[in-house]
Amino acid sequence: MQLLQGILERLDAGEVVIGDGGFVFALEKRGYVKAGPWTPEAAAEHPEAVRQLHREFLRAGANVMQTFTFYASDDKLENRGNGQQINEAACDLAREVAEEGDALVAGGVSQTPSFLSCKSENDVKQIFKKQLDVFVQKNVDFLIAEYFEHVEEAEWAVQVLKSTGKPVAATLCIGPEGDLNGISPGECAVRLVKAGAQIVGVNCHFDPEMCVKTVRMMKEGVEKAGLKAHYMSQPLAYHTPDCNRQGFIDLPEFPFIEMLHYHNKKTFKSLEPRILSRWDMQKYARERGFLPAGSDKHGLWGAELKMHTKPWVRARARRDYWEKLKPASGRPYCPAFSMPDSWGVTKGHADLMQQKEATTQDQLKELFTKADQSH
Amino acid sequence: MQLLQGILERLDAGEVVIGDGGFVFALEKRGYVKAGPWTPEAAAEHPEAVRQLHREFLRAGANVMQTFTFYASDDKLENRGNGQQINEAACDLAREVAEEGDALVAGGVSQTPSFLSCKSENDVKQIFKKQLDVFVQKNVDFLIAEYFEHVEEAEWAVQVLKSTGKPVAATLCIGPEGDLNGISPGECAVRLVKAGAQIVGVNCHFDPEMCVKTVRMMKEGVEKAGLKAHYMSQPLAYHTPDCNRQGFIDLPEFPFIEMLHYHNKKTFKSLEPRILSRWDMQKYARERGFLPAGSDKHGLWGAELKMHTKPWVRARARRDYWEKLKPASGRPYCPAFSMPDSWGVTKGHADLMQQKEATTQDQLKELFTKADQSH
Amino acid sequence: MQLLQGILERLDAGEVVIGDGGFVFALEKRGYVKAGPWTPEAAAEHPEAVRQLHREFLRAGANVMQTFTFYASDDKLENRGNGQQINEAACDLAREVAEEGDALVAGGVSQTPSFLSCKSENDVKQIFKKQLDVFVQKNVDFLIAEYFEHVEEAEWAVQVLKSTGKPVAATLCIGPEGDLNGISPGECAVRLVKAGAQIVGVNCHFDPEMCVKTVRMMKEGVEKAGLKAHYMSQPLAYHTPDCNRQGFIDLPEFPFIEMLHYHNKKTFKSLEPRILSRWDMQKYARERGFLPAGSDKHGLWGAELKMHTKPWVRARARRDYWEKLKPASGRPYCPAFSMPDSWGVTKGHADLMQQKEATTQDQLKELFTKADQSH
Amino acid sequence: MQLLQGILERLDAGEVVIGDGGFVFALEKRGYVKAGPWTPEAAAEHPEAVRQLHREFLRAGANVMQTFTFYASDDKLENRGNGQQINEAACDLAREVAEEGDALVAGGVSQTPSFLSCKSENDVKQIFKKQLDVFVQKNVDFLIAEYFEHVEEAEWAVQVLKSTGKPVAATLCIGPEGDLNGISPGECAVRLVKAGAQIVGVNCHFDPEMCVKTVRMMKEGVEKAGLKAHYMSQPLAYHTPDCNRQGFIDLPEFPFIEMLHYHNKKTFKSLEPRILSRWDMQKYARERGFLPAGSDKHGLWGAELKMHTKPWVRARARRDYWEKLKPASGRPYCPAFSMPDSWGVTKGHADLMQQKEATTQDQLKELFTKADQSH
Repeated sequence: MQLLQGILERLDAGEVVIGDGGFVFALEKRGYVKAGPWTPEAAAEHPEAVRQLHREFLRAGANVMQTFTFYASDDKLENRGNGQQINEAACDLAREVAEEGDALVAGGVSQTPSFLSCKSENDVKQIFKKQLDVFVQKNVDFLIAEYFEHVEEAEWAVQVLKSTGKPVAATLCIGPEGDLNGISPGECAVRLVKAGAQIVGVNCHFDPEMCVKTVRMMKEGVEKAGLKAHYMSQPLAYHTPDCNRQGFIDLPEFPFIEMLHYHNKKTFKSLEPRILSRWDMQKYARERGFLPAGSDKHGLWGAELKMHTKPWVRARARRDYWEKLKPASGRPYCPAFSMPDSWGVTKGHADLMQQKEATTQDQLKELFTKADQSH
Repeated sequence: MQLLQGILERLDAGEVVIGDGGFVFALEKRGYVKAGPWTPEAAAEHPEAVRQLHREFLRAGANVMQTFTFYASDDKLENRGNGQQINEAACDLAREVAEEGDALVAGGVSQTPSFLSCKSENDVKQIFKKQLDVFVQKNVDFLIAEYFEHVEEAEWAVQVLKSTGKPVAATLCIGPEGDLNGISPGECAVRLVKAGAQIVGVNCHFDPEMCVKTVRMMKEGVEKAGLKAHYMSQPLAYHTPDCNRQGFIDLPEFPFIEMLHYHNKKTFKSLEPRILSRWDMQKYARERGFLPAGSDKHGLWGAELKMHTKPWVRARARRDYWEKLKPASGRPYCPAFSMPDSWGVTKGHADLMQQKEATTQDQLKELFTKADQSH
Repeated sequence: MQLLQGILERLDAGEVVIGDGGFVFALEKRGYVKAGPWTPEAAAEHPEAVRQLHREFLRAGANVMQTFTFYASDDKLENRGNGQQINEAACDLAREVAEEGDALVAGGVSQTPSFLSCKSENDVKQIFKKQLDVFVQKNVDFLIAEYFEHVEEAEWAVQVLKSTGKPVAATLCIGPEGDLNGISPGECAVRLVKAGAQIVGVNCHFDPEMCVKTVRMMKEGVEKAGLKAHYMSQPLAYHTPDCNRQGFIDLPEFPFIEMLHYHNKKTFKSLEPRILSRWDMQKYARERGFLPAGSDKHGLWGAELKMHTKPWVRARARRDYWEKLKPASGRPYCPAFSMPDSWGVTKGHADLMQQKEATTQDQLKELFTKADQSH
Repeated sequence: MQLLQGILERLDAGEVVIGDGGFVFALEKRGYVKAGPWTPEAAAEHPEAVRQLHREFLRAGANVMQTFTFYASDDKLENRGNGQQINEAACDLAREVAEEGDALVAGGVSQTPSFLSCKSENDVKQIFKKQLDVFVQKNVDFLIAEYFEHVEEAEWAVQVLKSTGKPVAATLCIGPEGDLNGISPGECAVRLVKAGAQIVGVNCHFDPEMCVKTVRMMKEGVEKAGLKAHYMSQPLAYHTPDCNRQGFIDLPEFPFIEMLHYHNKKTFKSLEPRILSRWDMQKYARERGFLPAGSDKHGLWGAELKMHTKPWVRARARRDYWEKLKPASGRPYCPAFSMPDSWGVTKGHADLMQQKEATTQDQLKELFTKADQSH
């Protein structure tokens, strides 16, 4: 196996580096993550499920195994398992699979309830610091601060991660309208670079088209400020043409997606109709000039269909067929667009204050009203 | 753990027994199966991926682990790995996971190229017999003959499986219009019961609503003939209101679905918009009075959302919200319905003759023409 | 001008005779008819509007001017103008325009509140007789009994019209499921022919495809009974794939359509998205081998577009362009199908009893409940 | 009848003045206008049809009868009738109906082939002057320069109309992206006011929402320039969320709409599904505190439905029912959005040169290619 290079060397060399991701949604769907808290205790509880998902991404061509430590800060995990243990298990799983291929391990931190509850900069940084200690001890290859709705909190995270001397990437879950305080993508990017991030970008509140548009705005901002950076994008695989600033979180369909165990009446699949079509994905993806392990099962443009039993299906083994296809929804009673809610709620809002307990009936009732009003 | 009962004892006692299934589509999506041949060599090549999928079904409440032996007959596997080895590995994986819970192991056979190529009844039965030898040696708990488009071939399969003395289930991939020769669901069911099947039903060419309708027709036929049987249904999780007799195979979108590794430009997701919504699934599913392991991650009616960060998402933790939701497709350029192809092709047709090699350019060209004409 | 032949001579000669129609909807849209009562007092109040609509149909190729006497029976007109006067004015307008071209005049009667209120056969026949006296005095060329939901009432109407010795046509507003009592199209047609109708068919509760299907069922019934008849169809120009027995009346969108005067906030256009596309209409229409007056403004297949300013619009002057076009709705928040109400209400039901007065608030309230329950 | 005030007095007094309009589309649909040339020879050929449409607008509440002189310039009318005669007839018809109510008469001019063919400013102004002479002789109350895609030509028109001393309104058929040369709505408005227009606005290439947005941009421009004006908007009644700068002209469905005479196979209805729903229209319309003549046939919020035969339809006589309704398209094979063509063609382009003759087969063939490429 070739000598493993670091993330910055690869990017400087112009390589297209591919991440993994979507772990909480993929594992919620497989029955290992709770849709409400979205915390990664599965790393400790069900390592085999997390390991297998890492493997699928590796086979799919991912060059980076990100530790499954989303929302794994102590203030978020409360009552949901031992933070230290979860973060350690996640690092071990990522490294184990990374070594099966030419992949790097990235330790990830994300936004905290403490910030939304207006804790001090120092308190919030302590939270990041605690996760970071594990990443350092497990010697991850680089660090990612991801899924921040307020650039201010992302800057604090970058400053903490930076202290390790490891490469730092930072992504906000924002679109062209900017962060929840209305700070533009360009300005957000500049602040992240100044905080010390070598890679900046966006993740997972919008579809690829909107993410690319947002990253382009970031790039323009950074260059206009005379700074330099690498860029990354980790879009949703859902169409979000009807989303506002809050992204798919504001869609009435959020957050449930298909799970395998529908027989006991608890699947939720509302976002499914939006999953990107192959062609939309094509427009987003970039060629790398070689194919990953998983490709032994997937010929280009459906070439493997040439082995199908049905002649008319074999006839679909051609590029123009799949390029021109407009897939039907099979849903005659459903519309193309939803009306997103329009919640401006941001840091410090009473509703966002940290709360261990589940919402009470009274709180719920009050929220129904607000939710209904928002339509 | 309670004493394990056999499939017939459970059904006679009125238990709702839940199968697993959808392995070829789920594993194609995860990068372990080829969409054209749809063969299960992954059982030998990537046991960890097959084992993990079995586990997800077990956690989801499945009472049956079906051996991943779809299309694993020697005449279908040609050049795609050792049949003996694949069938043995599939049995071992199913048993291993079954023993982690209260589950039975079912050995499965499906339709053969030999039948479509008009081989003799004896030749076709030899094909089934070969797989059966492995199931007997591995001592599976019962047998399933599934995915037959011609009831005649299914009868042959049942007759072979029957010889073992194990319980036999048989499902056709047909809808209300009957099998490819136009034999009605009622008559098909009667012929399968007479051939020796104790459980009859349908699988995976139509959505739950159409499958339930078809099974009801089967039940009426069986009862009118003064016979007795148990019934099973393994529907698609795709909406198929626009399908004709051939089922979703005739949809222009067939067969590609989402995979995880889109970064190298080879995902196909055309069927995705059709995935059943939770509410459609609700209408199909039946209560069992208890919940499976996976439920520790999924509260009823989105109860876990009470722990979500966003207040308006917490407000969605209620039954009527999800019952009333009509999920949007996010696809303003796509219609609700497709025009299915209308191929009457059935057993013996030149296009269906067994062929080891991939379709040639000339054959392909000829097929384009036919396919285009069919629109 | 050629010698004018009667309707039966024309049909016997194999001519495709084209009617006019849709007057209440077209004139409601133009501001001359009330959507609730749907009565034709405009014939007396605004003759110029009725005359102009007749002219447009004549120019469009209609061979028959039907008197604008829909719902013009005395029991329906109560408080809405003098029946005698309205029926006379309608006859004069139809004749005036008919004489501008090669057209016949048909006097029309339709279903009565008296029937729904269970008045005696004799009472109901007296109602028809009263309108008939005007038609005889004005010497219309033939008679049409149209828009009956119960074949029984239609038979009574035919028997009355028959007494004049003029040719009689009879159409029910039913689909393949038959009349509101579930009497099949075939049996309905037989009963109408036996009552004396020489022309039988359907009108205006379903789209062309469903109307043609229903008329075919009528034809089969009549021929199986060894009888003879001519057939007619006056379909809606709305798509009704989602309708049940009651037709478009049960659609949530019924009955409002576009009007010209939206500036004072009173337009209702809910049925508009359903208006038939040119291509659907093509499939329904039949060639006659010549073109009507209006054709001087409309070349075949958009030929006149060759004179358009924009080159890309001129490029649309070709048949295959319009044949292949799938027109977009421009309505991203609207679905393809509606859920029809399912009211079984028929003759004699308390809600259908004759009532001069507008629905009271209490009645309305009670109806909201029923309506909401029906969803 | 009250003393008739001029347009400017009415607007200065804050009155909401309502125009008529949509004559070419409405009359094409009724069989009196050719969709390609869109010229108004019907004013002379079929005065009764034009008079009736004026009446319908008057009854609908219009305060202005605009002469049916769209595209009635000599260079456009070539071979399509005597310009002098058509313009005179149009003035007489507008005045005749205006005097039936409290309405003003406006003489209208629109863009010319001469401009697109790069004729000199003087030549183009001569064209406008010729129509103007008729308006002066017929003493219309004010003048409208409408449907200009290039603000430059509109300025020339305003300068000519201004010479009469009559009030002048000017509307461009542009959206938020500005005119075909990319000149912004704000700058366009400023140039029109400086040219002498007292009323500026937009007409008929976009839906109400986009038109209001564009007029708002015009208003901001005018006020920023320290100028004063009144504003007008004559939107399409079609949804155009998917349009680009060229407006609905670039939609694949343009330009055909429903006509009454489909029986001879020549209706085109591709734009129909887009017709605005009542609720969209409500959002656009403004209250005036009184109702027009036509309102005797239309109760607010469907009040007249209280007289409907069917109880469940009577139950729809309520505001919230119609406000919440999302009308279905009944078109399961059609999408919500179209892909507009993207032709940048503007003044002087070879394809736009004036041409008496219909497009030739060769020209057509060349255009097909371009059109196909544009998709």
